[in-house]
Amino acid sequence: MRNICMTVSYDGNGYNGFQTQPSCNTVQDHLEHAIFLLTGEKLKITASGRTDAGVHARGQVFNFYTNSVIPIERWCLAINARLPDNIIVWNARLVPDHFHSRRSAKRKTYRYTIRCGKYPDLFKRHIEFHHPTPLDVQAMREGLSHLVGEHDFTTFCTSRTDKKMLVRTIYEARLECDPMENDLNSYAMHIYLTANGFLYNMVRIIIGTLLQVGVGKRSSSNVKEILEAKNRSLAGPTAMPHGLMLWDVFYNEENALDS
Amino acid sequence: MRNICMTVSYDGNGYNGFQTQPSCNTVQDHLEHAIFLLTGEKLKITASGRTDAGVHARGQVFNFYTNSVIPIERWCLAINARLPDNIIVWNARLVPDHFHSRRSAKRKTYRYTIRCGKYPDLFKRHIEFHHPTPLDVQAMREGLSHLVGEHDFTTFCTSRTDKKMLVRTIYEARLECDPMENDLNSYAMHIYLTANGFLYNMVRIIIGTLLQVGVGKRSSSNVKEILEAKNRSLAGPTAMPHGLMLWDVFYNEENALDS
Repeated sequence: MRNICMTVSYDGNGYNGFQTQPSCNTVQDHLEHAIFLLTGEKLKITASGRTDAGVHARGQVFNFYTNSVIPIERWCLAINARLPDNIIVWNARLVPDHFHSRRSAKRKTYRYTIRCGKYPDLFKRHIEFHHPTPLDVQAMREGLSHLVGEHDFTTFCTSRTDKKMLVRTIYEARLECDPMENDLNSYAMHIYLTANGFLYNMVRIIIGTLLQVGVGKRSSSNVKEILEAKNRSLAGPTAMPHGLMLWDVFYNEENALDS
Repeated sequence: MRNICMTVSYDGNGYNGFQTQPSCNTVQDHLEHAIFLLTGEKLKITASGRTDAGVHARGQVFNFYTNSVIPIERWCLAINARLPDNIIVWNARLVPDHFHSRRSAKRKTYRYTIRCGKYPDLFKRHIEFHHPTPLDVQAMREGLSHLVGEHDFTTFCTSRTDKKMLVRTIYEARLECDPMENDLNSYAMHIYLTANGFLYNMVRIIIGTLLQVGVGKRSSSNVKEILEAKNRSLAGPTAMPHGLMLWDVFYNEENALDS
């Protein structure tokens, strides 16, 4: 048996999220079906984590054990030929037996994109949340800075969670404007969050809260206050899924045995 | 009667081109229907030109005469509220009575985008033509340079044309790589063509020919030879429509009476 690890991009629109559901039509279902068509093996893949319905991925990571002898460099094109065109596997590598896409992950980066301007960018409307009125970029950056570090993120986790341990460490929280924010007509605001793990809906609740900071409905220092209060009802709403993208998953060097 | 001129973006995927067809489902049909819903007027709009099925527009321009007294600054949002979300009107202005979107146009720019790399860019796959093997950017730039100036473009016009006069002037032909072409993994090649007018399928036949230059199937100087031969059968195939976008239409300053 070989342990194969792959990196996959997908457009989350139209899928019921990453993880297998009774209704099928998830990204995992399509990946497992493509592997079955290629190898004849009915196997289960393990991903770095689930993504919600409508959320995209640039670099989702998954692994699986296979008896197939297909050379590693042939896997990407062979799998892609058996996938819908909104799912693309772009890296395949052999990893040690003990490698586990979720448990071996050291940190993850998510990106959330807000299109600020009177009109949406038509050609990016499926991956950008559109906000038609001006946002206070500086206040949003300040609000974001309060989240960096090790904290109990109860305030920014859906109450429907089944997790007991709600402490996570955000290593980096960055807000970039493209083009620079002085172009008032239209710009994309990209918010990158890197952490050792994320709670259910955590990024989207952070973004929903930051948007309230951006329109002046809440101060940037309020982000610190509600974080410390550990109370979900104090945070903003859960932002729309289509602006969110699982950007990257990081592992120790030893696991990245690129072919 | 007021003469109103608008600029519109649309995603051409799924439409039977810009111009009204018996089958409906064209961009023009949707725009005229939105104007009807807003004003009750069953009118015909005049555009700068048609675009083929699957071709996109960033800045298509059209005008129409209306009895409506709705203030000009309200038109964009009012029309957009009555359009599907893959058509967005983003500028509306009053123009002189004699203004005609096609006849008053001085020049037009089209952009064609080729994604060079092993895999498509998943999130731009609807607006980029994917080419998986390397292309000779320098040879393509040289080939392009032979097209600048006033020429008879018979070679680069579909034989199905009904036009008699096939002389056009290309003012600018530019090839840009994003990021720079030394990133060999994946880059977008944008080819911008600006002319006083374009023949039917002209940009797509030029691109189909340039792709043959890019893969070494044809020399860059051959572009000059076939242009001079005035023979469609000597050019390359018509490139796929989804990489093409009507980028901009230029008018004399006097017509741009912005509100």
